[in-house]
Amino acid sequence: MSRFSLEAVLEKAGNPVELLRNSKVGMYVYPVVAPEFTNWRDEQRAWRESAVLFDQTHHMDELIVEGPQAEEFLAYHGINAFGNFDLNRAKHYVPVTPNGHVIGDHIIFRERQDKFVLVGRAPTSNWLMFCAAWGKWNVRIKHDPRSPSRPEGERVLRTHYRFQIQGPDAPKIFEKMNGGPIQEIKFFHVDWINIGSKKVQALRHGMSGAPGLEIWGPYEDKSYILAAILQAAQDAGVNLVRCGSRAYSTNTLESGWIPSPLPGIYTGDGMLKDYREWLGADSYEASGAIGGSFVSDNIEDYYVNPFELGYDFYIGWKKNDFIGKDALLKMKGQKNRKKVTFEWNAEDVVKVIASAFKPGEDHFKWIDFPQPNYASTSADMVMHGDKMVGMSMFNGYSYNERCMLSLGVVDQDVQIGDVLTMKWGEPQPTGKTSAEKHKQTEIRVRVSQTPYAAEARTNYADSWRTKATA
Amino acid sequence: MSRFSLEAVLEKAGNPVELLRNSKVGMYVYPVVAPEFTNWRDEQRAWRESAVLFDQTHHMDELIVEGPQAEEFLAYHGINAFGNFDLNRAKHYVPVTPNGHVIGDHIIFRERQDKFVLVGRAPTSNWLMFCAAWGKWNVRIKHDPRSPSRPEGERVLRTHYRFQIQGPDAPKIFEKMNGGPIQEIKFFHVDWINIGSKKVQALRHGMSGAPGLEIWGPYEDKSYILAAILQAAQDAGVNLVRCGSRAYSTNTLESGWIPSPLPGIYTGDGMLKDYREWLGADSYEASGAIGGSFVSDNIEDYYVNPFELGYDFYIGWKKNDFIGKDALLKMKGQKNRKKVTFEWNAEDVVKVIASAFKPGEDHFKWIDFPQPNYASTSADMVMHGDKMVGMSMFNGYSYNERCMLSLGVVDQDVQIGDVLTMKWGEPQPTGKTSAEKHKQTEIRVRVSQTPYAAEARTNYADSWRTKATA
Repeated sequence: MSRFSLEAVLEKAGNPVELLRNSKVGMYVYPVVAPEFTNWRDEQRAWRESAVLFDQTHHMDELIVEGPQAEEFLAYHGINAFGNFDLNRAKHYVPVTPNGHVIGDHIIFRERQDKFVLVGRAPTSNWLMFCAAWGKWNVRIKHDPRSPSRPEGERVLRTHYRFQIQGPDAPKIFEKMNGGPIQEIKFFHVDWINIGSKKVQALRHGMSGAPGLEIWGPYEDKSYILAAILQAAQDAGVNLVRCGSRAYSTNTLESGWIPSPLPGIYTGDGMLKDYREWLGADSYEASGAIGGSFVSDNIEDYYVNPFELGYDFYIGWKKNDFIGKDALLKMKGQKNRKKVTFEWNAEDVVKVIASAFKPGEDHFKWIDFPQPNYASTSADMVMHGDKMVGMSMFNGYSYNERCMLSLGVVDQDVQIGDVLTMKWGEPQPTGKTSAEKHKQTEIRVRVSQTPYAAEARTNYADSWRTKATA
Repeated sequence: MSRFSLEAVLEKAGNPVELLRNSKVGMYVYPVVAPEFTNWRDEQRAWRESAVLFDQTHHMDELIVEGPQAEEFLAYHGINAFGNFDLNRAKHYVPVTPNGHVIGDHIIFRERQDKFVLVGRAPTSNWLMFCAAWGKWNVRIKHDPRSPSRPEGERVLRTHYRFQIQGPDAPKIFEKMNGGPIQEIKFFHVDWINIGSKKVQALRHGMSGAPGLEIWGPYEDKSYILAAILQAAQDAGVNLVRCGSRAYSTNTLESGWIPSPLPGIYTGDGMLKDYREWLGADSYEASGAIGGSFVSDNIEDYYVNPFELGYDFYIGWKKNDFIGKDALLKMKGQKNRKKVTFEWNAEDVVKVIASAFKPGEDHFKWIDFPQPNYASTSADMVMHGDKMVGMSMFNGYSYNERCMLSLGVVDQDVQIGDVLTMKWGEPQPTGKTSAEKHKQTEIRVRVSQTPYAAEARTNYADSWRTKATA
């Protein structure tokens, strides 16, 4: 076994929870894009009230999978049904471990019969690269990892640029950009549109709760496309607001996607052990951080399954076989937790902030605005009395809702409208450099639907975002 | 007159205050450097409790002035005495207009008898470039403007790297870096030290209230020097914390320097009018923003003079002549305002924050942490009852002091300890993209000494930082 593998790191660390809770990797940042173009309040407001431009070029891994077995390979390693996967469709692709735990998720585009582009966090890219090497597959994979977190003035190059335009006024921009009305593109379908002199692929999406398009193309076209978009918005008389990295990650609070489940790969034998020996000591999985009040000796307590995240209706039960199928069949009959939005009590949030104005006293964990996450994976305890009944997994302030929200999972018997208590802050200092010394406190949270945003709840096409999980 | 000059822009705008209060230039950012390396609370704490590493490579203009008349030129265009300006010294260089209003300030280093390096915000660089062209001076000027605010993945190059290491544990790092004790360098004196295999110039400084050194050299050495510093800190067992761009600008709140006075160049005839015709329509002066509650029809109400900023003891009265000398002589006899620190009432700050948790209601101007400035120049009204008795000019939260502070000027009869009222937020919406829609409120402020930090008050060498201005 390589001394530089995740498995070697885990052996040395003893407990994976210890390792990850003391990671010194720092914040999980949205790199390269400026923190703010206008200000993060107006940038959030734009996706609800006019239109927003997300620059998604830098914060995700990209994986190109091609070859005669590309479809077979991906279908075998994801839970999704592939039967209806035509060239003009995208999917929300979810791989699980043989034990049925979520590894991560990517958006997957089919560019050709034998070529797919996948976009998302590292755990899914890493897993697929391993799987291609571990099994006997006739596929070729090209990996373009996310941009460096702190380029500090060095040039950053990627394979593709990737923009998303969202909001009620977005269609006016598309029409102007396209030089005429654009064809109707169904939700999560792909088509070609014109931008200036270029033909560009566009995915119908709705990340922040309003309709929109995601477009991409060769990175060297980025400046041209950006200029064309801004010009089209101006010509259309639309207030298109560029979204900076501070507001960006909060869009998911309103729409209900949890970007950061802990990949369930730290335990398990066979293929999973082989994976940990394949993964490097500097991988996301080995260097990432767990933050939050939930401390368990057992790393598996941080795992989630597709049922809990509301992804069960993706599952391609008719597929002959796929990794995790047996485990998922068992889970299907169980009482799984369900995904909800936690609405944080404003008085309690203000109490936390106010504690940072008392010189000489320990204060509560600072809530940074609009994005208080301080680790790659967040896990805060949600309590009903003395009993843990849920886990809060992704935090953020919504200027549109004027409140702090988080996404997470709760036990089946928790009901919408229940008021629970979240433990905020860690019980003891850890090695994490992203958290200052603090003391723990409690914040009341009201259990709410996901997606939280009324627009997101009512305007979406058939997708996990609209499947009420509670 | 060029259509693309500041003067042309002003003619079109009518009133300079209107122009600048509605600027769409966005935040005045500290570019290129990552927002956070650990977290901004611990980054602030480091300069008080261990050691901090500031990367000052990107946020300031640099001007190299050389030639037979370099000294004469600079002495004539700054208020400072030059008599004691030896090769091993630096100065805090302050030019004023012929009317005695501060234009800006730079740190000035003398590299050779006939060569000076100046570092600071654009107004001083612009003014000196104009002066060299306007008069008959045998000098050559090289201008390296600050890095772009939003490089978005493009490479950024500068002439010099510039680091500063500050804090109580900084000397241990210097000794390790230098391979032995470093010679005593007096405050604002320069000497050569060793870093790894290189000889590097070092300025004894103390920006955040603790002793330290600023070092600089060719930009291509940056990575080498950074690595050597980090290694030296590790070898010395010192917790050297890299400071990100979010914490960086707040260090001045504790030490008392006001970085952003409005250059007093928007009015006045002769040389000043020529300057405005020389300045471009995209210059700092034409595109910069004024933010804050103070709205006057008269741009001159935003100007400050060197007496108000505590720079009067720099003035080289013995110099035969220098720009502004006559005006300053007149001001000397006047009742000038004085520089103070405003300590913001914690309850009132929390009230402002709490207002952003009430859906459907207008809220007070968001106070962004740790740096709530939303313009290149801030001007908030400080009131005693109905009377304006001061102007708050630079804001920030100090984690070390656990309070919001601002720097500004007050009338002579205001006393340390007085509790005044600051108007927070703008009376009407403006075109500024950096401020969201908000309503105005009041925040009580206690007038305090500058520098505010006890360390800064007691540990400094003879400088404006220790001259109690009140």
